[in-house]
Amino acid sequence: MSKIITISREFGSGGRELGRRLAEELKIAYYDQEIVSEIAKRTELSEHYIRAVEERQPPFSFPIHIGRSFYPAPNPAWEQHMTVYQEQSRIIREMADKSDCVIVGRCADYVLRDRKPLRLFVYAELESKMRRCREKAPADEHLTDKELRQKIRDMDKHRSKYYEFLTGNTWSDKLNYDFCINTTDRVIKDLVPVIARLF
Amino acid sequence: MSKIITISREFGSGGRELGRRLAEELKIAYYDQEIVSEIAKRTELSEHYIRAVEERQPPFSFPIHIGRSFYPAPNPAWEQHMTVYQEQSRIIREMADKSDCVIVGRCADYVLRDRKPLRLFVYAELESKMRRCREKAPADEHLTDKELRQKIRDMDKHRSKYYEFLTGNTWSDKLNYDFCINTTDRVIKDLVPVIARLF
Repeated sequence: MSKIITISREFGSGGRELGRRLAEELKIAYYDQEIVSEIAKRTELSEHYIRAVEERQPPFSFPIHIGRSFYPAPNPAWEQHMTVYQEQSRIIREMADKSDCVIVGRCADYVLRDRKPLRLFVYAELESKMRRCREKAPADEHLTDKELRQKIRDMDKHRSKYYEFLTGNTWSDKLNYDFCINTTDRVIKDLVPVIARLF
Repeated sequence: MSKIITISREFGSGGRELGRRLAEELKIAYYDQEIVSEIAKRTELSEHYIRAVEERQPPFSFPIHIGRSFYPAPNPAWEQHMTVYQEQSRIIREMADKSDCVIVGRCADYVLRDRKPLRLFVYAELESKMRRCREKAPADEHLTDKELRQKIRDMDKHRSKYYEFLTGNTWSDKLNYDFCINTTDRVIKDLVPVIARLF
């Protein structure tokens, strides 16, 4: 049985750390920045631009699987977004073909649905996510509590819209995942051996 | 650290089996029928009646924590329901005081919230729940697919209303639980050693 783990996660829930540590524990590949670099190589778009496309809400509201024919008229921004999404899905499939791996975000649970990955959703209470964000914030980030709360809400809203756009499903719906893990008051490192046992 | 595990579960998801096996694996108490028997002993209501109260939607719609004073006038059915709920909570707390245990349903996650139990929510896709129900159905149960689907939906709706009434929270909200476990296409027995590792 191949080991492919996809992690969807709320902003500040520690999902990325969980993914990285899980890959270490299982001695399998961890794909994150590699995906961005590979898209950049293939599309000649900048990594900075690709990250922005990945992190922001799609500039259109209906799900991608409805098909392009419904969209009034293509425009350059739309075309570039579509290029990023398509390359991203292609690269994720190639990486999963190549070796066992952990992939964080990017609707990998949906892209790889035929491969039956172990699909995790990582979440936490807002206060806990704020604490994690503070701990990991760059030294020059000085957000008030109100600003940070808003940032977390916005990021999760974007992820939700992005997921819905690419998959037609609801991001936070438990049924899209095998296990949902609440990291409130939990040390990510301690969860890793348990999750690794799911194989 | 005391081992108290509460399990909320969708009808047909295998949550009860998971609870029973988990208690066996961890060699701790498993409380289910004992709670009903104990309520019966203390209230002189029949076990059959108590089960019906536990399994059916509360006969009033606002959450219990709003307080009795808002309710227009007490009536015997209401009083009996309240008696069952109160005894049930008291017994759950006594059992958790007595020893490590697994408690299935009955809003035990909320009743024991000060004890920081490990709170699990067990769910599955509808088709999977239908298969489990068919496997476990008594020989004389002959429901059509449509009837079974409706039964599952009704049971989950009742559990949801019951939880909301007693706790003021949303039953299916991930944030009320530490781990949510999708049992679709999973063998419950195989999940047990993994979940047991959470301690």
